[in-house]
Amino acid sequence: MAEKSHPDSIDRTNAFQDYYPDDYAHCFGCGRLNERGLKIKSYWDGNESVCRFLPNDYYTGGMETILYGGIIASLIDCHGAGTAAAAKARELDIQVKPGNMPRFVTAALKVDYLAPTPMGVELELRSTVKEIKGRKVIVSVTVSSGEALCAKGEGVYVQLRDESI
Amino acid sequence: MAEKSHPDSIDRTNAFQDYYPDDYAHCFGCGRLNERGLKIKSYWDGNESVCRFLPNDYYTGGMETILYGGIIASLIDCHGAGTAAAAKARELDIQVKPGNMPRFVTAALKVDYLAPTPMGVELELRSTVKEIKGRKVIVSVTVSSGEALCAKGEGVYVQLRDESI
Repeated sequence: MAEKSHPDSIDRTNAFQDYYPDDYAHCFGCGRLNERGLKIKSYWDGNESVCRFLPNDYYTGGMETILYGGIIASLIDCHGAGTAAAAKARELDIQVKPGNMPRFVTAALKVDYLAPTPMGVELELRSTVKEIKGRKVIVSVTVSSGEALCAKGEGVYVQLRDESI
Repeated sequence: MAEKSHPDSIDRTNAFQDYYPDDYAHCFGCGRLNERGLKIKSYWDGNESVCRFLPNDYYTGGMETILYGGIIASLIDCHGAGTAAAAKARELDIQVKPGNMPRFVTAALKVDYLAPTPMGVELELRSTVKEIKGRKVIVSVTVSSGEALCAKGEGVYVQLRDESI
């Protein structure tokens, strides 16, 4: 029988995304096998999850001083998806190890852009799980630059049926 | 007095985004001055606007056969923003020329992912203006691959106050 899983059962040196199966690790946002990608990484921090990210200097919005909203949407999408997967693993009491993280796809995403997000600053995303209902997980995400809340979002994620775990 | 503007008053050889002022042309999604960017381009097609886009092969989702949802969000964001700007210019009866397109920022974005979006296929986005109210424009967007509707979205865009036009 698997050892009981809880937030701390995931090795803190690895991100949620590091546990995705190889055939699910090609995401431009967070796939460890996508050499050109953003490599977004998410970790538990108590019952929240956290992601820190410093965008490359060419991910600008219209003006050179602000971050592109599509990158903010991408950060929210991948951080939320990783959190959905880790939360589902926790609910299922899975001892997470490389390759057995549940696989989720995004069904819906919404983002509210609250303030211009500056370039050149490491951003912090924090997520909370709003709902787990069967294969559906809803995750709320905030994006902050220092003390400033720049954006908030919500992702609806659905677990793939072909799970082998 | 400026010549009356209507959808066809924008030169069909240029995209909405080609008319953005230089200081607003750095967007990773659609800025003509962003060398690394996606260079999303939008055009009127009657009362709808259209954007065709073939993503680079590294913009994959988790699996290598499907497009990353963050890129879909980006396409919707920039195509919607360009449409908001062009629609506002039309409402204001502005004769659009390089540098005088109204500048908009995204206030909110939502995306429903309806079906996996395949790689290696030119996608078609179509937008309709749902509402223009003062400085706020709401745009609905669909994303199709051939006959298949892959995603739909909506952007809420706000015109910047410091317009000089």
